[in-house]
Amino acid sequence: MQTPKTLEPFFSPKTVAVIGVSNKKGKVGYTIFENLKKAKIKKLFAINPKHKIVQGKKSYPSIQSIPQKTELGVIVLPSVLVPKTLEECMKAGMKAVIIISAGFSETGEKKLTKEIAELIRKNPQTRVIGPNCVGITNNMNNVDTTFFEKSRMKQPKKGNLSFISQSGALGAMILDWVATQEFGINKFASYGNAMDVDEADLLEYFGEDKGTKVITAYLEGARDGKKFFKTAKKVSKKKPIIILKGGKHEETTKAAASHTGSLAGSSKVYEAVFKQAGIIEANDLLDLFNIARILEKEPLPKGNRVQIITNGGGFGIVTADQIIQNKLELAKLSKKTIKQLKKEIPNANIGNPLDLLGDATISDYKKAITSVTKDPNVDILIILILFNLPTIRLEHIKELNRAKLKVSKPAVVCSIGSGFTKKYLRKVENAGFTTIPYPTLAAQALKELAQYSKFLKKN
Amino acid sequence: MQTPKTLEPFFSPKTVAVIGVSNKKGKVGYTIFENLKKAKIKKLFAINPKHKIVQGKKSYPSIQSIPQKTELGVIVLPSVLVPKTLEECMKAGMKAVIIISAGFSETGEKKLTKEIAELIRKNPQTRVIGPNCVGITNNMNNVDTTFFEKSRMKQPKKGNLSFISQSGALGAMILDWVATQEFGINKFASYGNAMDVDEADLLEYFGEDKGTKVITAYLEGARDGKKFFKTAKKVSKKKPIIILKGGKHEETTKAAASHTGSLAGSSKVYEAVFKQAGIIEANDLLDLFNIARILEKEPLPKGNRVQIITNGGGFGIVTADQIIQNKLELAKLSKKTIKQLKKEIPNANIGNPLDLLGDATISDYKKAITSVTKDPNVDILIILILFNLPTIRLEHIKELNRAKLKVSKPAVVCSIGSGFTKKYLRKVENAGFTTIPYPTLAAQALKELAQYSKFLKKN
Repeated sequence: MQTPKTLEPFFSPKTVAVIGVSNKKGKVGYTIFENLKKAKIKKLFAINPKHKIVQGKKSYPSIQSIPQKTELGVIVLPSVLVPKTLEECMKAGMKAVIIISAGFSETGEKKLTKEIAELIRKNPQTRVIGPNCVGITNNMNNVDTTFFEKSRMKQPKKGNLSFISQSGALGAMILDWVATQEFGINKFASYGNAMDVDEADLLEYFGEDKGTKVITAYLEGARDGKKFFKTAKKVSKKKPIIILKGGKHEETTKAAASHTGSLAGSSKVYEAVFKQAGIIEANDLLDLFNIARILEKEPLPKGNRVQIITNGGGFGIVTADQIIQNKLELAKLSKKTIKQLKKEIPNANIGNPLDLLGDATISDYKKAITSVTKDPNVDILIILILFNLPTIRLEHIKELNRAKLKVSKPAVVCSIGSGFTKKYLRKVENAGFTTIPYPTLAAQALKELAQYSKFLKKN
Repeated sequence: MQTPKTLEPFFSPKTVAVIGVSNKKGKVGYTIFENLKKAKIKKLFAINPKHKIVQGKKSYPSIQSIPQKTELGVIVLPSVLVPKTLEECMKAGMKAVIIISAGFSETGEKKLTKEIAELIRKNPQTRVIGPNCVGITNNMNNVDTTFFEKSRMKQPKKGNLSFISQSGALGAMILDWVATQEFGINKFASYGNAMDVDEADLLEYFGEDKGTKVITAYLEGARDGKKFFKTAKKVSKKKPIIILKGGKHEETTKAAASHTGSLAGSSKVYEAVFKQAGIIEANDLLDLFNIARILEKEPLPKGNRVQIITNGGGFGIVTADQIIQNKLELAKLSKKTIKQLKKEIPNANIGNPLDLLGDATISDYKKAITSVTKDPNVDILIILILFNLPTIRLEHIKELNRAKLKVSKPAVVCSIGSGFTKKYLRKVENAGFTTIPYPTLAAQALKELAQYSKFLKKN
């Protein structure tokens, strides 16, 4: 394996050439070049022999005519022109090439596919992503070869999660959804037919990448099962890997095969492989990123005993039900903690949930959190706040400063509501706590956090 | 049982008196009176002997001094004054009284509780909700006795779902969340200590209520198990009842007992009762309303065979996985349908998912939906649309007119994304389809729809 260093030119190239640029709005060759103009790189070259100027920039007639050596080439040409162009890129000494063009093995095509395979085999110094892919996005320097119109998508915030998607369209849809969330994305990659760079190479790269704290992926099947397992096992000891597996059942495995041509493999086999490799399996799209953001922000718990703190009895009870359904445990507070809580918050209903009642103030929450976080019987805190109640004041939320309260155990704040509640939740997030509106999703994610912690202890 | 007619004055009173109004902003007696000023009723009376004017309106010194007979009384007084006031309401011939005040059995209080019980027993012509409750909201005429500050909550849209919540605070939080959703609320009731009106009475009332199409509830336990079962069994044959049960496990049952004083009962017993009574059990808060809105808008399916239509392969596969996980079946299209699809949409990948591919247009969706809905092998349609793809145009969405396409089977549209996608989803909703962004939630809700359909056939 040559990665991870050899993949760096895909994500942080100094120079990029787009081969097959277009002046016609709506064309893939137009959108890619337009998007790349925003990238923080030294030089961007347009190549199209039909034009002298493309989108206001000089257009070169060929790869050979570019005045300097280029690191990354992006090919957006009809499939018949791809092998010859790829060869020219390789001859010109490019370190990385992304082939966006489709019309190869995914349609049953054989001749061109074979020619590309041969070129890749003979020129290992050039790494290739694709063909039939949307390419990569580095959210930190705006290097972006995905060809979705920006008017139809929002860009996610900058963050520490990186995302690999076997399906380009699904990946784009998810990035657009992530843009509406509190967390951010570092890098994204979709690798299409995986003729050279595959999911294992990307895992390895993100495993070494400093910007990536947590690796998420949508995967229908691995190109090389053994390589994937070996890489995942190594990487998961350094960083959490969370995967949503598409095609989990006999019927859907077939659909996956006709979608990306990959052998999805039986659900049982994958589950066993994932478990052994320390991969966290997400149940669906929502789950995937909720687990990821908890793993990004929260420390690992020592065990699975959860204490709930609430100002709403019913809200506490439905959350406790979710804790048990997700095979976590309800913590039992120590005698010392109970004594202290009785003294400091005499009206509270002490138990699990610890119910501070409807007239609780942020000051009561501070006292409760401070006591509970010190309790050796508690591994994880879920803090529920009904912000609609009048004693909870916006100006007090900043007092829930996590660092000052010395909360070094995983602690998640949940609340459901409209804009008013969302405003308060943002303040809580600023105070250092991870917020996940729905307790169900928090419980599911915390279960995985506890299991990953257990895996790391054993391995 | 005297319901449902006797509960009408709670929700549609001609005249209302608030006993214990206040001029001090933030007080419960202030907020309730302020909220009720917006109600569409003939006359609203303020009662407080300490003031002559309250919030710009004449204040009466006593119930006796009101110049006309009043239908609904709302008591917001310290607990010691409640029995005497309730007696005066009954003597004045009120048909309904809501006691907002707390400080009775829920705190272990006995004397006042007994006095109230005695008055209820002797005066069956006056129905009582409470004490220790937030009361009711009729979203259609703005009769609203809940005392949450409107600056902290949004009002849900008008709709056909009614909601019963044993927990007032949880109920308010959910109503606030519903305000951010596409669906609306008809009526809401929280009944506190249930000394007279209980969950069964409310079920019966909503069962007869013309504005209510689907009944939702958060319940920790029934006051009278047999009455609840008998009522639910009768009502569920007319309208769907969906309940989120709080306190489902041994540990949380205890917490529920100390919250509303109700015997939550073992999870096993409740599950059996729910099933026999045709009650749909929701797994969590999100689930509760997603099931409800599908049951409100969609026809009942004949079976559980689901056909997926998509323009994204990966999105189709993750949805198919959810269909199987929720014990629904993937439909197998008839030969006739396959032949027609091959002719009309030759590029499509025909199967389940039926993948119209990334360059599909709304016209392709129309063809696919029209063929699939006629297929006798299909009971339910899930339509996935990646709106980010450039061939899907906003101006075409109205062509997905459900009535014109003659889709008389349950059909749900899913898509995930930011504001752009949400705008398109709203157009789809206007065209007559139910939209539920996450396929996971759609699959969970459709499972319950299929099961309810089966229950109705058997009963």
